[in-house]
Amino acid sequence: MDKSRFSYPVPQKNIRITDRFWSERLEVVRRNVIPYQYQALHDNIPGAEKSYAIENFKKAVAVLRDRALGKSVPVYPTDKWYYGQDAPEGAFHGWVFQDSDVYKWLEAVAYSLINHYDPQLFAQASEVIDLVCSAQMDNGYLDTLYIINDPSQVFTNLRDFHELYCFGHLTEAAVAFFEATQDRRLLDSAVRFADLLCRVFGDNGKKGYPGHEIAELALVKLYGVTGAKKYLDLAEFFICQRGTKPYYYDTEHNTKTDGEGYRYNQAHCQPRHQYEAVGHAVRGVYLYSGMADVARLCDDDGLYSACRRIWDNICNRKLYITGGIGATADGEAFSYDYDLPNDLAYSETCASIGLSMFACRMACISPESKYGDVMERALYNTILASMSSEGTEFFYVNPLEVLPIASHCDSRKRHVKPVRQKWFGCACCPPNLARFLTSLGTYCFSCSENTLYIHQYVGAEIDTDFGNVNIDSTYASDGKVSVTFSASRPCELALRIPGWCRDFCIDVPYTVRDGYAYVAVDGDMTISMDFGIRPRLVACSGKVRANVGKAAVAYGPMIYCAESVDNGEDLHLLSLDATADLRYCDGRIIAKGFRTEPREDLYYDYIPCDTVPVDITMIPYYTWGNRGENEMTVYISVAKKL
Amino acid sequence: MDKSRFSYPVPQKNIRITDRFWSERLEVVRRNVIPYQYQALHDNIPGAEKSYAIENFKKAVAVLRDRALGKSVPVYPTDKWYYGQDAPEGAFHGWVFQDSDVYKWLEAVAYSLINHYDPQLFAQASEVIDLVCSAQMDNGYLDTLYIINDPSQVFTNLRDFHELYCFGHLTEAAVAFFEATQDRRLLDSAVRFADLLCRVFGDNGKKGYPGHEIAELALVKLYGVTGAKKYLDLAEFFICQRGTKPYYYDTEHNTKTDGEGYRYNQAHCQPRHQYEAVGHAVRGVYLYSGMADVARLCDDDGLYSACRRIWDNICNRKLYITGGIGATADGEAFSYDYDLPNDLAYSETCASIGLSMFACRMACISPESKYGDVMERALYNTILASMSSEGTEFFYVNPLEVLPIASHCDSRKRHVKPVRQKWFGCACCPPNLARFLTSLGTYCFSCSENTLYIHQYVGAEIDTDFGNVNIDSTYASDGKVSVTFSASRPCELALRIPGWCRDFCIDVPYTVRDGYAYVAVDGDMTISMDFGIRPRLVACSGKVRANVGKAAVAYGPMIYCAESVDNGEDLHLLSLDATADLRYCDGRIIAKGFRTEPREDLYYDYIPCDTVPVDITMIPYYTWGNRGENEMTVYISVAKKL
Repeated sequence: MDKSRFSYPVPQKNIRITDRFWSERLEVVRRNVIPYQYQALHDNIPGAEKSYAIENFKKAVAVLRDRALGKSVPVYPTDKWYYGQDAPEGAFHGWVFQDSDVYKWLEAVAYSLINHYDPQLFAQASEVIDLVCSAQMDNGYLDTLYIINDPSQVFTNLRDFHELYCFGHLTEAAVAFFEATQDRRLLDSAVRFADLLCRVFGDNGKKGYPGHEIAELALVKLYGVTGAKKYLDLAEFFICQRGTKPYYYDTEHNTKTDGEGYRYNQAHCQPRHQYEAVGHAVRGVYLYSGMADVARLCDDDGLYSACRRIWDNICNRKLYITGGIGATADGEAFSYDYDLPNDLAYSETCASIGLSMFACRMACISPESKYGDVMERALYNTILASMSSEGTEFFYVNPLEVLPIASHCDSRKRHVKPVRQKWFGCACCPPNLARFLTSLGTYCFSCSENTLYIHQYVGAEIDTDFGNVNIDSTYASDGKVSVTFSASRPCELALRIPGWCRDFCIDVPYTVRDGYAYVAVDGDMTISMDFGIRPRLVACSGKVRANVGKAAVAYGPMIYCAESVDNGEDLHLLSLDATADLRYCDGRIIAKGFRTEPREDLYYDYIPCDTVPVDITMIPYYTWGNRGENEMTVYISVAKKL
Repeated sequence: MDKSRFSYPVPQKNIRITDRFWSERLEVVRRNVIPYQYQALHDNIPGAEKSYAIENFKKAVAVLRDRALGKSVPVYPTDKWYYGQDAPEGAFHGWVFQDSDVYKWLEAVAYSLINHYDPQLFAQASEVIDLVCSAQMDNGYLDTLYIINDPSQVFTNLRDFHELYCFGHLTEAAVAFFEATQDRRLLDSAVRFADLLCRVFGDNGKKGYPGHEIAELALVKLYGVTGAKKYLDLAEFFICQRGTKPYYYDTEHNTKTDGEGYRYNQAHCQPRHQYEAVGHAVRGVYLYSGMADVARLCDDDGLYSACRRIWDNICNRKLYITGGIGATADGEAFSYDYDLPNDLAYSETCASIGLSMFACRMACISPESKYGDVMERALYNTILASMSSEGTEFFYVNPLEVLPIASHCDSRKRHVKPVRQKWFGCACCPPNLARFLTSLGTYCFSCSENTLYIHQYVGAEIDTDFGNVNIDSTYASDGKVSVTFSASRPCELALRIPGWCRDFCIDVPYTVRDGYAYVAVDGDMTISMDFGIRPRLVACSGKVRANVGKAAVAYGPMIYCAESVDNGEDLHLLSLDATADLRYCDGRIIAKGFRTEPREDLYYDYIPCDTVPVDITMIPYYTWGNRGENEMTVYISVAKKL
């Protein structure tokens, strides 16, 4: 690691998003998503699956009170991932990680309050925080599953249950809320829980680590806000302990395995010896983010090398063109290299959010444009696609090809929904999206002592130590950005040159390094960029079997797709004419192509099929599925000259 | 139904297979498969999964003896489909249908004894039959699962457990053994069990029907050999009762469903109202075979119409080019119309055997060549492929595209094995294959009063009521067949003109009807046919998404495939040149084509890939997987002129 190249995300309070496109999305989150999720967490959405999340906290408070009063409290088994309607009334309900939905909502509220202070929202959050804090045990433990069902069993199944995961989300919310409001209540709770973990885990304590990672990066955040090094040490311990032999999960479950099953948890070998992204994709990118944090803060080059290897593996072998990861629904997991089926894709929204977290950390360690490029793919495509325009319906899974009959009739595709859903019992994605979008600016801009890095061209006003910056961007629609800098001292602006860009123009002198254009700034200065946006055909490596003979259409950061509402059914019978121009018109791309006339006979002596010329209409991927249930595809066959 | 067109399979004892190709396969079954399976059923194969089948019969005998002696016998729950090593020692072990493996073996032995009497084999079978008969209860009941575990629970879960399925296989074996040897022991057992069923089920008894069909067609066989109409009536009852409301399986399980879940069992509506092949494919084709039998014998035109509709649905929408059916591993089931993925295919061996049973019955009702064509697909491709040349290794699943890394790493393809396996705990396919191949002739030839139908050109000597016939065939290798007829009176020979055949030559006068060439025969006569075999490219309807832009190569009845051992890895990068000739050479086909050079970059601005000309080597599908683990594909991209 070259520390001279380190940068730090610009604090959110120093950023005001002014971008028209993004402001509108953020307003949807503020006006619709956050209030909607508040109701969802309180089980007030008719027709939606019950969350039970707030109810669990209330039960935990009551149980703690009863126990304090010496009342006898029933014990329930903690033996499943999900506790549904048939669970005893007094017991925990929902998924084992249900608490985290509350924390993610609180984190989103915190960021939203920074962007737009709203006393009523603060009051709502404040009430929830009081409830959360009241559910904490005296020793600092805070997870309603075990508090309600059986506190004697805490930390006995780190592999499957999610206490340390919930701790992680609690801590992220706590740090955010403290930074947003200086209100310490949730932070104090997180600190008390973290202190308990420091007592329980470590060289002289339990040698375990989270089954679902996120505590690692959360502990680093807690270290950042408190300065207490023991939290960083615990994060490092969790990472270094992971995957060592004998396997902790073997010991915990009194089994003896070869560790292959722990690939799911990225615990089959030590993280620093991992070279491939494997297992549950969200867990993976959360771990890799924590590894990058710890590598940087602990100056651990070995760990950083692992991060770089894993990054390259993801981005060169396991990344959908839409910035999605996780090619299989079985285990919501990475598949093997180059296995990127379009129709069976999992590509969970949360995984693309986690990939952006990882990208942001890697870019802050070493400003290379490949990190921002991948985050851009995820941001403008999978992440944006996951929410309806109103912010009340969501995709959890983001496939690149959808055939409604397959989703309805083929159990292999039961995870693929042809339209966005209202809410999910397992609702990790919508609140994750809310907390991500409300803090978008911190992923876009970072600073070193003298340099402001613009990783994403989101229009914003930014305060830095060396002056104010105004970014005026119509990047996604015409590839143009202008940056006005009022520098208080000589400094530097680093502008990511997008990977898709072939010809660009920056109207001031610059030098290019690792895909960033560096511009020296002094005093007042306006820099205009034109990244030469135009529709383009993107091919995929022949090693990806699903895409042989096909291509995708893109425009700037956005990948396009075809829907049957525009193009008729059987999109697989369309072919793009690779020699014809693609025409961009008002947010759509029209491509010349052909439609093959299918034969009815199932098998027949080969003759080339008849084709008819057609215009193929494509729309941005993120807007698909907004006109009712219909077929969609990102990849389209490419016709050679006929 | 036009009864004047009915024909009846030629009895096996009137057929002697002389075909060089098929005799060799039959010898493998006789010399290797049958003895190997005898050892497998007795758990004597080191390294193979235990069968427990014979052990269960021995346990049942002991339990019956103990009960007769008034000893207390423990009761075990009957609540699972599989009872493994952890089941109590005294309890039933294996799959709920484990008994049927013994019956299928006995059936194969019976046919084998007809073909080639072997006193030692008879003695082995005789001992097994004694064991089976000793395990029968006084009331005729015979299923070791319930006899061992809990006789009070018989017939309480027709939906999930397989008593009536085991009855069906017992009966098929019993009829075969009686016909082969005139030995009545097993037939008497089957009759006693059938008589029990006649007492238990019916308008005045239980209104249930088999969860896994086969009893229907077995009862028809029992009717055929005994002449007792009550067995035909019970077969008809099972078929007519199936899918009526209220659903029997709802009543049995004290639930109330909309019946959608019973599509798995083809019990969502009455068979005569079914128009689509749905659910578990093997169950389906066994039911449809029984329906065809009952339709014919009971003169039920409505039921026959359903058979025709379902046949057309399978063959026009749900049939792999290899004669495989069952496109999804989930439920080993038919998928929706035109969903025929190559790599995820289930295409169970047993399903293609069952499809041949259905085809044979339909052809005997109405001699239309489409039935024989489909049986030919199944026989020369999926069914043949399922067994290794030595007869000791088997495929259960028969995909059209295999990538070993996917089978090893991708849980969605865990059912796809890249090489044949020794034996399966769920070993339905190998013994089914044995009984099918040993009785092959009865599927190939049928007679009406004056006509001998040759549905499949398997070389054989056949005795008919109107004279002896000698078929000399090199059909699969050069498309030539000659038939020598010594007719004792004027009669007719009906020769199926294969669907793949474009130009044929028959050296005597003939008329063609429904795809059969009819030749009038009187006295001694030799008829020579040449079906003009040559390699050909076969296309698949554009409605099948998996095969867009691809074609398969075939030669006569055989579908060919490419393996990476001949063509290098990444078979998906090969393209056939549709304009170049295919060259047949010594059992292989060499095709001119191209190999695309894949780019390493996962995504890049589209440019057509470089290609290099290559010769693509293809081998018959049935021979794949005999040279170690490697990639295989049936469908190959077709290059348009570049």
